[in-house]
Amino acid sequence: MESHQGKSEAIETLEKSSIDCQISSSSNGVSVSDGMNKEECRKKVVNVLERRFFCKLSFNIYGGVAGLYDYGPPGCAVKSNVLALWRRHFVLEENMMEVDCPCITPEVVLQASGHVDKFTDLMVKDEKAGTFHRADHLLKDFCTEKLKGQSLSVEKVQELKHVVAMLDDFSPEQLGSKIKEYGIVAPITKNPLSDPYPFNLMFQTSIGPSGMIPGYMRPETAQGIFVNFKDLYYYNGSKLPFAAAQIGQAFRNEISPRQGLLRVREFTLAEVEHFVDPEDKSHPKFRKVADLEFLMFPREEQNAVPVKEAVKLRLGDAVAKGIVNNETLGYFIGRVYLFLTRLGIDKERLRFRQHLENEMAHYAADCWDAEIECSYGWMECVGIADRSAYDLRAHSEKSGTPLVAHEKFSEPKEVEKLVITPVKKELGLAFKGDQKKIVEALEAMDEKEAMEVKAALELKGEVEFQVCTLGKAITIKSSMVLISKEIKKEHRRVFTPSVIEPSFGIGRIIYCLFEHSFYTRPSKAGDEVEQLNVFRFPPVVAPFKCTVFPLEQNPGKKAVAEQISESLTAAGISNIMDTTGASIGKRYARTDELGVPFAITVDTPPTVTIRERDSKKQVRVEVKKVAT
Amino acid sequence: MESHQGKSEAIETLEKSSIDCQISSSSNGVSVSDGMNKEECRKKVVNVLERRFFCKLSFNIYGGVAGLYDYGPPGCAVKSNVLALWRRHFVLEENMMEVDCPCITPEVVLQASGHVDKFTDLMVKDEKAGTFHRADHLLKDFCTEKLKGQSLSVEKVQELKHVVAMLDDFSPEQLGSKIKEYGIVAPITKNPLSDPYPFNLMFQTSIGPSGMIPGYMRPETAQGIFVNFKDLYYYNGSKLPFAAAQIGQAFRNEISPRQGLLRVREFTLAEVEHFVDPEDKSHPKFRKVADLEFLMFPREEQNAVPVKEAVKLRLGDAVAKGIVNNETLGYFIGRVYLFLTRLGIDKERLRFRQHLENEMAHYAADCWDAEIECSYGWMECVGIADRSAYDLRAHSEKSGTPLVAHEKFSEPKEVEKLVITPVKKELGLAFKGDQKKIVEALEAMDEKEAMEVKAALELKGEVEFQVCTLGKAITIKSSMVLISKEIKKEHRRVFTPSVIEPSFGIGRIIYCLFEHSFYTRPSKAGDEVEQLNVFRFPPVVAPFKCTVFPLEQNPGKKAVAEQISESLTAAGISNIMDTTGASIGKRYARTDELGVPFAITVDTPPTVTIRERDSKKQVRVEVKKVAT
Repeated sequence: MESHQGKSEAIETLEKSSIDCQISSSSNGVSVSDGMNKEECRKKVVNVLERRFFCKLSFNIYGGVAGLYDYGPPGCAVKSNVLALWRRHFVLEENMMEVDCPCITPEVVLQASGHVDKFTDLMVKDEKAGTFHRADHLLKDFCTEKLKGQSLSVEKVQELKHVVAMLDDFSPEQLGSKIKEYGIVAPITKNPLSDPYPFNLMFQTSIGPSGMIPGYMRPETAQGIFVNFKDLYYYNGSKLPFAAAQIGQAFRNEISPRQGLLRVREFTLAEVEHFVDPEDKSHPKFRKVADLEFLMFPREEQNAVPVKEAVKLRLGDAVAKGIVNNETLGYFIGRVYLFLTRLGIDKERLRFRQHLENEMAHYAADCWDAEIECSYGWMECVGIADRSAYDLRAHSEKSGTPLVAHEKFSEPKEVEKLVITPVKKELGLAFKGDQKKIVEALEAMDEKEAMEVKAALELKGEVEFQVCTLGKAITIKSSMVLISKEIKKEHRRVFTPSVIEPSFGIGRIIYCLFEHSFYTRPSKAGDEVEQLNVFRFPPVVAPFKCTVFPLEQNPGKKAVAEQISESLTAAGISNIMDTTGASIGKRYARTDELGVPFAITVDTPPTVTIRERDSKKQVRVEVKKVAT
Repeated sequence: MESHQGKSEAIETLEKSSIDCQISSSSNGVSVSDGMNKEECRKKVVNVLERRFFCKLSFNIYGGVAGLYDYGPPGCAVKSNVLALWRRHFVLEENMMEVDCPCITPEVVLQASGHVDKFTDLMVKDEKAGTFHRADHLLKDFCTEKLKGQSLSVEKVQELKHVVAMLDDFSPEQLGSKIKEYGIVAPITKNPLSDPYPFNLMFQTSIGPSGMIPGYMRPETAQGIFVNFKDLYYYNGSKLPFAAAQIGQAFRNEISPRQGLLRVREFTLAEVEHFVDPEDKSHPKFRKVADLEFLMFPREEQNAVPVKEAVKLRLGDAVAKGIVNNETLGYFIGRVYLFLTRLGIDKERLRFRQHLENEMAHYAADCWDAEIECSYGWMECVGIADRSAYDLRAHSEKSGTPLVAHEKFSEPKEVEKLVITPVKKELGLAFKGDQKKIVEALEAMDEKEAMEVKAALELKGEVEFQVCTLGKAITIKSSMVLISKEIKKEHRRVFTPSVIEPSFGIGRIIYCLFEHSFYTRPSKAGDEVEQLNVFRFPPVVAPFKCTVFPLEQNPGKKAVAEQISESLTAAGISNIMDTTGASIGKRYARTDELGVPFAITVDTPPTVTIRERDSKKQVRVEVKKVAT
């Protein structure tokens, strides 16, 4: 929002001292990275977040609902600022096309994407208590707890570590037998558990009055972009590469939400789908990020025995050495790094971790998570994946609409190639109205597919084969199509683009930002509390840029404060007034706790004092110059 | 977004001619208000909206879903700009507290608000075809169609008009008997219809893995604010008045969506809840809007026979004469008027219509809709209601948490009043853990309630009475409470605040804005089309501020264009490049159709031509000065 970004000259002067101060912040306060106990830190942060209404459990007058949170005024302002910066950093600076699609999604779309079948977690039921648990969480907790013990054999340690590493690969049966083997029971009640079974994480509903059209609340925003590929490609002048972006709510019906704001049932996602020619994944602006150096955690380091640590790599080298699969993926890793550090995420507690082979979907070319370290450990906050052509192909097949791109050759190329000639008469007799879609599907077969079909028909003597369109496999008789080898002049190449997807969990980023920005400093003698809490938000994300307060509660100073507040608002600088009778120290403590970078005290009009949050430096400015 | 709001000097020069031009727009183009046929206009607008991907039916590769729409890149940019302006105009300029609550809402909240029982439309089923229709729509369509006929008796005309006027008041039985009486059958199929029955418009789902916790997708964002009242009041230093705001998705499972973008199943709402002392609804800034004059349509004019037209009233007079119930309600009407006209809504096609007695909820003190005229007629786009204390009382009773405010007296007042003294021992025995909530409920009884209870116990000899708390009526025996009359010193007054709620349907406003901004102008000889389409968006809402294009496709000019685009982006001015080989006229036509106010043509570097959309005026500017 412009409203949170405005800047006056007086404030710019102070900002410098803020930056100086943030660099040397460890010298003037205690922050988590300085060794404050993790749980203790989390408790302090969460206390301020709830007390100052940054966020809290939703519907609390009714006892709350697990996994649903509200952002109160300062939290909502931080979120707005984070999203505004995201839009500026990605949509505007990268000329992306932003779209806005509904949360309610018909079943067919999520069948195509695989969510209806596969978006599940394995669940066990405590039959007596009627409660549910995530099977992998229970097993992981058990192993982690055991591993803390002293008297384990080397073999046992290896076994437990192996179980933790393989959790994502376990079938329901494997998980179930491990749970039985280890005698794991329900937490708290200690009741026996059912066998694990899959639970679909999508919230289901039905669309329209008949109750017959199933729909779901989208589990991600990406599908809205994929199903629009054709229109977006046309809108972009039928040229690749291009990127589309979407910010919006997504929903996952977690089995038993924990980790507070990090695992919730409704959250804001910001996703980019960058469509690119699979044969050319270079990026024209890669050089702009190539010199960035930051913590990366490649597969090799993770697989090493013993496991190695994340290493500082120059992004250009990581791509050149093939550690990162391609330039475009590398470019987005760099842009994500710049975005997160610009927000205020500590670069020493940010790493890019490559997915292990067993974590990645079979179709993915490469995948990196931006992980941020907080009191819960390293948390995945952004996923950056090269998903190849999987999603567009899936929707092409299910919908019967080819989601493809074209490359026009500057001059026609003579190529020996297989020519697929549908025999339209036969197809028309067999398929009637569906003929057109089937012809399109036949023509869209790639060289390899067509070669295989030709071989099957001619060499193996088969008389039919199948193509996928209209959401099913259609049987084609050999009489319906001619497949021949010809020298052909080609004017263009038709192909399914690859997609590179950076996907941001905004709520997780914000929570980590809260932890990274938090520090305490000793209070002065006479203060009510021992320690003062501060959020060192950079001005661009701080909920309000200024607090304005009259030193004493007299009408004259109050009027001046109001006048300053109005002039700041008019200049687009967000601000709040504090006209309570509290002492100046108390009011500074309040504004620090909200992370407001500048406090303007109306003490001796026509001049006022502006004080910077972290350095506590003060400057005197004339009232009429505050907002200019 | 700041990104869409930046402004360079060269652009400011041209903006003046844009403003001049908009004032005299009827002289250089044909717009809807100039008498273009309504359906024809709508067709043209919708054609451009779909073709340029402002918006279109969602999931169209799967055949689409009625009532769900996507915003494509230019539509999404317009929406972002409208929301950014809304935030600036309301949240920032009025110092509102913004909150952000989940869409998924547990049933108890919507039971308290009345949505579970009453948020229904009456539906009839075409039993043979298995389709559904809104009963009131069918009846209204029937009457409207009949009324177009020539040969109706005066009595018949009166009867049909009366039916249309009373539609909102009809019970299912009354609606059913009218449908039978008139022999109304299903549209298209002409099948017979079932009796009308209520259909709840909320999308239902269930929360958590048990399937036992019902929840709904919120039908409005307001409830998230009401349930947070206590925390918001505390956050505001326990002072009234204050306003909270929320922007977010809301969901209504319409029976059979029609009217395109105006009646949809998922939409963005922006709502304000302004909490105020019911005994003082004055507003300190009312004088700032008192002199505004615009079209108002009070109840009296609507009830007149024959119906009168909306009248131009000075807002200050409307409040002074009691036409508008109070200053705060009037203030928001004025602010809504300023917001909508600032967006580009034509003030001649905007009116504020007061709800008739039978339209308003029984608890509402007064209610006005901002209605915008478009090709579908006058559409409700903003509702501005004084909802009295209804919502807070409902949640107080259901949750057992008193949602009240306090007024501290400057010095204690001696008042003769009823004193309610709970006999805690008796209550404790009877209610155990619930005692505290019940004591609070007893103490929160107002004078009138307590008087009635006292009368019943003492005069009528009754031995028990009931209070509402914990979501039910609790029976209290006379031994559990003492009600006496005493002279008491009171230090404060406890009361439930009134709420004044302006609620904005953002999608409807945007659709009306599209229609109001659209006009055509004749093309020049030699152009492919007869008429050119233009959206005259003001720069603040235009999807992009500038288009940049090189006159010819040569690398030098393309590089200059890229350099200009980058410098605009860096200055926060949103822009798009058009590097196609199309003629300059075609490219102007494209940028006009997107409503981009300024086109920068790289023709003779080091200077370029900037052309304003509506006046078509051009100025020459040096490349390096474009973005400054």
